[in-house]
Amino acid sequence: MASVLADRLARVRAHTVALAAPLTEADAQVQSMPDASPAKWHLAHVTWFFETMVLERFEPGFQPHHPAFRVLFNSYYQGVGDQHPRPQRGLITRPGLAEVLAYRSAVDARLQALLDAPPGRLPAEALALVELGLQHEQQHQELLLTDVLHLLSCNPLSPAYDAEPPAATETAAPLSWLAFDGGLVDIGHSGGGFAFDNESPRHRAWLAPHALAQRLSTQGEWLAFVADGGYRDPRWWLSAAWEWLRAERIEAPLHWRRSEADGPPQAWQTYTLNGLVALDPHRPVVHISLYEADAYARWLAAQTGQPLRLPTEAEWERAAAAGLPQAFGHAWQWTNSAYLPYPGFQPWAGAVGEYNGKFMMNQMVLRGGSLATPYGHSRISYRNFFPPSTRWQFSGLRLARDGG
Amino acid sequence: MASVLADRLARVRAHTVALAAPLTEADAQVQSMPDASPAKWHLAHVTWFFETMVLERFEPGFQPHHPAFRVLFNSYYQGVGDQHPRPQRGLITRPGLAEVLAYRSAVDARLQALLDAPPGRLPAEALALVELGLQHEQQHQELLLTDVLHLLSCNPLSPAYDAEPPAATETAAPLSWLAFDGGLVDIGHSGGGFAFDNESPRHRAWLAPHALAQRLSTQGEWLAFVADGGYRDPRWWLSAAWEWLRAERIEAPLHWRRSEADGPPQAWQTYTLNGLVALDPHRPVVHISLYEADAYARWLAAQTGQPLRLPTEAEWERAAAAGLPQAFGHAWQWTNSAYLPYPGFQPWAGAVGEYNGKFMMNQMVLRGGSLATPYGHSRISYRNFFPPSTRWQFSGLRLARDGG
Amino acid sequence: MASVLADRLARVRAHTVALAAPLTEADAQVQSMPDASPAKWHLAHVTWFFETMVLERFEPGFQPHHPAFRVLFNSYYQGVGDQHPRPQRGLITRPGLAEVLAYRSAVDARLQALLDAPPGRLPAEALALVELGLQHEQQHQELLLTDVLHLLSCNPLSPAYDAEPPAATETAAPLSWLAFDGGLVDIGHSGGGFAFDNESPRHRAWLAPHALAQRLSTQGEWLAFVADGGYRDPRWWLSAAWEWLRAERIEAPLHWRRSEADGPPQAWQTYTLNGLVALDPHRPVVHISLYEADAYARWLAAQTGQPLRLPTEAEWERAAAAGLPQAFGHAWQWTNSAYLPYPGFQPWAGAVGEYNGKFMMNQMVLRGGSLATPYGHSRISYRNFFPPSTRWQFSGLRLARDGG
Amino acid sequence: MASVLADRLARVRAHTVALAAPLTEADAQVQSMPDASPAKWHLAHVTWFFETMVLERFEPGFQPHHPAFRVLFNSYYQGVGDQHPRPQRGLITRPGLAEVLAYRSAVDARLQALLDAPPGRLPAEALALVELGLQHEQQHQELLLTDVLHLLSCNPLSPAYDAEPPAATETAAPLSWLAFDGGLVDIGHSGGGFAFDNESPRHRAWLAPHALAQRLSTQGEWLAFVADGGYRDPRWWLSAAWEWLRAERIEAPLHWRRSEADGPPQAWQTYTLNGLVALDPHRPVVHISLYEADAYARWLAAQTGQPLRLPTEAEWERAAAAGLPQAFGHAWQWTNSAYLPYPGFQPWAGAVGEYNGKFMMNQMVLRGGSLATPYGHSRISYRNFFPPSTRWQFSGLRLARDGG
Repeated sequence: MASVLADRLARVRAHTVALAAPLTEADAQVQSMPDASPAKWHLAHVTWFFETMVLERFEPGFQPHHPAFRVLFNSYYQGVGDQHPRPQRGLITRPGLAEVLAYRSAVDARLQALLDAPPGRLPAEALALVELGLQHEQQHQELLLTDVLHLLSCNPLSPAYDAEPPAATETAAPLSWLAFDGGLVDIGHSGGGFAFDNESPRHRAWLAPHALAQRLSTQGEWLAFVADGGYRDPRWWLSAAWEWLRAERIEAPLHWRRSEADGPPQAWQTYTLNGLVALDPHRPVVHISLYEADAYARWLAAQTGQPLRLPTEAEWERAAAAGLPQAFGHAWQWTNSAYLPYPGFQPWAGAVGEYNGKFMMNQMVLRGGSLATPYGHSRISYRNFFPPSTRWQFSGLRLARDGG
Repeated sequence: MASVLADRLARVRAHTVALAAPLTEADAQVQSMPDASPAKWHLAHVTWFFETMVLERFEPGFQPHHPAFRVLFNSYYQGVGDQHPRPQRGLITRPGLAEVLAYRSAVDARLQALLDAPPGRLPAEALALVELGLQHEQQHQELLLTDVLHLLSCNPLSPAYDAEPPAATETAAPLSWLAFDGGLVDIGHSGGGFAFDNESPRHRAWLAPHALAQRLSTQGEWLAFVADGGYRDPRWWLSAAWEWLRAERIEAPLHWRRSEADGPPQAWQTYTLNGLVALDPHRPVVHISLYEADAYARWLAAQTGQPLRLPTEAEWERAAAAGLPQAFGHAWQWTNSAYLPYPGFQPWAGAVGEYNGKFMMNQMVLRGGSLATPYGHSRISYRNFFPPSTRWQFSGLRLARDGG
Repeated sequence: MASVLADRLARVRAHTVALAAPLTEADAQVQSMPDASPAKWHLAHVTWFFETMVLERFEPGFQPHHPAFRVLFNSYYQGVGDQHPRPQRGLITRPGLAEVLAYRSAVDARLQALLDAPPGRLPAEALALVELGLQHEQQHQELLLTDVLHLLSCNPLSPAYDAEPPAATETAAPLSWLAFDGGLVDIGHSGGGFAFDNESPRHRAWLAPHALAQRLSTQGEWLAFVADGGYRDPRWWLSAAWEWLRAERIEAPLHWRRSEADGPPQAWQTYTLNGLVALDPHRPVVHISLYEADAYARWLAAQTGQPLRLPTEAEWERAAAAGLPQAFGHAWQWTNSAYLPYPGFQPWAGAVGEYNGKFMMNQMVLRGGSLATPYGHSRISYRNFFPPSTRWQFSGLRLARDGG
Repeated sequence: MASVLADRLARVRAHTVALAAPLTEADAQVQSMPDASPAKWHLAHVTWFFETMVLERFEPGFQPHHPAFRVLFNSYYQGVGDQHPRPQRGLITRPGLAEVLAYRSAVDARLQALLDAPPGRLPAEALALVELGLQHEQQHQELLLTDVLHLLSCNPLSPAYDAEPPAATETAAPLSWLAFDGGLVDIGHSGGGFAFDNESPRHRAWLAPHALAQRLSTQGEWLAFVADGGYRDPRWWLSAAWEWLRAERIEAPLHWRRSEADGPPQAWQTYTLNGLVALDPHRPVVHISLYEADAYARWLAAQTGQPLRLPTEAEWERAAAAGLPQAFGHAWQWTNSAYLPYPGFQPWAGAVGEYNGKFMMNQMVLRGGSLATPYGHSRISYRNFFPPSTRWQFSGLRLARDGG
């Protein structure tokens, strides 16, 4: 068990470093907005997590790698103590990237030594925390990419993180529907393998008959919404969404750019990790807020006369258990479920009890996983969550429909 | 039917004027914060609602009372057209209070004339909209009181809206619990009498076993939370709540005041519509945000070792259907349910479709009714909603507990 | 002396009440922006000044009219003690207008009793402070009008403070110049009659040869600046001015309104104390910031090839001493002099030392007097001052030119 | 002439690169606040100045080094065109530091080739603009240091830009005074050598008798002000200063830190380019705003009974012409003169006309030069200017006194 974990530790940790490899030291340093973090901070913080949650508790004779790191790289754990202010993460130019990579190596070596302990010497809790650290690191792998994308998107030179052209897409099939009967379903983690505390306990929920789109909504479909003036008509928008749209002067998904002010549809481009590319009408739309996803559903409902809406997380999970195309690997899928505790929810004990539970307010659930989600990280009970105005994540939309 | 409605119209409309009677013209003019509205605006806006939603559509030869009022007193109906900006409601010193009262009288007379029509001449939709206008006016009766309370609370002279001393309370019983089995329940408006669109459709929900407190939490109980340093310990607070508490320097419920900086518990007073009075330990605590209610439940759970939390709205409604003490007439009761559409929800047709549906985001549900809610206005399926930081309403707390 | 002062006291105090007479209680209550104050507050504050600066020190057996007023109506005198926060002046609905008028009457009676003392019994300092109180009240008479104008301008119904049509103007003469030699001049109050501390000491200054326009710039001349795109061309604007203009979306003087978006010049109207009226091309432009006055001078300099600019306060004062048309009674005239202490400046002793001196930073000097300045209040050494972005005052422009 | 200039060009340009040598790529990238700029931006912008102002106009067959740089590294020249938004300078991670250094080298080579032209071939204006570019670069050399100091000061690890310990200071002499008679003086650049446009024209000014301190105020003297509660007493502070102090929670000069909350004076440290060091009571105080300098003078005036104040810029310049100790090389010295045009001021022709003139509002003049000012860059007519709240510059204080 511990040696399997040791191998996995080595692989996951190396993958993070590989993701940061295309970055210059300057790229790795900058925080482009308070919601994002510098890549260097991600590299250090996930290491801090292992040092603080695992080594500090289980390593004999533990000494901190650097006495200041406990505060400097603490994200939000009040139980651990003070934190460097989040909006100022980008001001910490020292330690430099090389020192952070050395910090990673040192902690990796100490973790591997710990895992080398004779079977049974290391408590199961230590192994569980190492696994949690790996899951945590995978979450930051995705954040590292979304944060780098946001940073580079602020540069008028439109530099590419990855100069490879994006893979070709196949033609999107016409939108069709998977119908589901109503009734009682069981939702939440069923017990096998790792899951976050927020996926438990597994519990019952009653669903009314409904259908889910068999694929995500595409950039081409979204373009029709834009072209129809969807962003200028208050009928489609929630009140909070309309205020947000006007305050932020939102006119299209994040990273969409029109070459000419009044150009034709083909003039739209989108900024990606591969640089600025033409919209691909067959690819799922991403970088939309829940506000936009919800408005799109209302607009399309009016166009088609169908009772369209966003799915709930229970509907999504039941369908994914039955088999749902494009569940993973394309885009996180907004649901119209608020991120709230499941009935009987208990956060983990100890400092990691702050991992998920204290964020259960003012956020909406996304399900599935995106092109930036590490392979094998997500699962059908996985609950991602962000405020409804969030756009810098790879967030997209799968439609739902009332009735079977 | 129409004559019953005509009587009710006269009574409800007169009650609003009576509520404003203790106010000076200055009191009625001022908007103390963007969330609140001037009393004069409330008096005018509810009249605008009747004029725009009823007279404009059903009165033969309709002429507006004043051409500017359509915009001036439109709250948020995009379907009606432009609106005077909400934070600037208090700047409209003219029309004055007398003119607004004259506007009320004129619209009342026209409504009564409309309702005098021979039976069957007035479409059922017109009668339904008059009823909606009355329900709407009752909602603003409560808002008028909460907004006046907020305004007067800003005055260091602590003037009283109502100079009568508050009624004496009985002794609060020790906290006890009403246990409920799990299972399928039906939630939502069951069809008899008026209800808002957001209470429909009636639908099934699955509940786990739980218990609800048989009364609301009291000011005396809350004082123990304050005295224990509850407002200074991040363990009890959601992340968003802790940020809010620190940014706003929250140390106690809204309107609580300590006579001396380090005085004893009995030194706490609270500002009410009757002026500044001593805390009454047996009376329900009010003017707390959901953030505070949630933190209190966590704190008390740690004190008592019980799995305490806020109820969900389905739990509350099922219990209220079975019989729940202090359901109405004391304080709106925060639930931990997000204000989201019921499965299959459809907003009303026409302009009044904006009444409730477009606010279904970033708000939490409160159930019950307060001392300021007009008698007979609320019901067990009633869904009140506010953002989780809201405190100027008469909002309180009923605890729930996992397990039977 | 004291009886002359008593007469003057009665007249000045009555004039303030007369200025407030056209206001409803609601008009008198509202604070339309933090820089402005409610008319009721002006009525009370000037009374507070007499009570605190005169009665409290010189009335035998002084008792405060109301114990809370000392804080409530203190504007900014740290030496007196705490102050009610300036942006919250409009929230004080009680005491009401009638109580404030009663406060005025009571203090007036006590002041008259004080002034009735036998000759020689009242110290000269007391008389001087009464005179200061009258000068102070006259300043607030003008502020009351500018603040009411701002408040009513926020009302889309465009109510008039004074329903009389504005007086007809004569035809403005073509712009001509009064030339002045360079050399040493004496500036500042020369000793006769009342003056504020900031007008002293009289001192020497060296002036280069220059000329001043013999009249103020007119609305008609300003219209040419607007029509030429002057508000959209960064060449004419100081850096801080250009940032301000863009942030505030400034396109014309405050209170100018275009009936149609692309209407002809004659379509411009301006909101005044007499309501909305057509621009009068012969009348001086008012409600311009220093930023706009400065930009206009640069634009006109480029149009005409002349070295145009704003005058300095020393140039203005020397010219006014020699005789300067339109020095008083039309508009305060922006100078390009910062409001700083004269060489050897000493603030008055005691609490009134805060009257002027502590504002000598971040403000620019205006000279002359406006149509709203009480007759006889201003003088050639008078220094009015506001931040360079200020527009709600009756502020206009007299051009200067380098060289004789 | 051109070859002397070529040598100077090489030396000044190399010095900038040397100043940046201790910085990591991360240090050079980050913008710690909107007022500051990244070191990399400074390196690029001063190069842009040469490319745009000199090469673009005078190099035959000019081609831009990179087409995007014209906007990217334009600071504020509207005449040149668009500018990358100032607060987003730190987001431009590419071009990287190496590319910027290559940009520098390329432009240097092209400038040297231009200067190699046969005598008389290059217009005098070109030579003047090269000289202006060098003066401009020297200004940015100082800004680079102040901006790096600010950035590193945000790091809780307190890294040093320069690990050398600060040079020892001599003992500060007791404060004594240099007395000056009143009368007419000539102020402004007298014509020899380079000067900025804002130092002209030379003109007369009348001064009253006064004295200037023969040295700057020291850290030790300032500590007495802090210890006496000077930062908590509104009597000493201008109104705008007191608001600023309270809003920003100012308690001591920028970069002063108290090891223990209530420690003794010797517990104060100050963060410098050499890292965190003990206060040196004999060294001039730096990193104070004008607000603080002014308050200190008022406090000391009350302590000593002397009419102390800040000097005017004319007083400073006249004294410097006569010989003023510590005029240069220690700290910029706040004057109580607003930064306004001299009588008859004309900005330079062309794009460089925006260099100084458009900032003549809302700023106060500093005279002299600091330890970070390049040797030989300043002069007695030099006018530095910043808003009165500015603290991140090396700004200090020389007292003045009314009377001889």
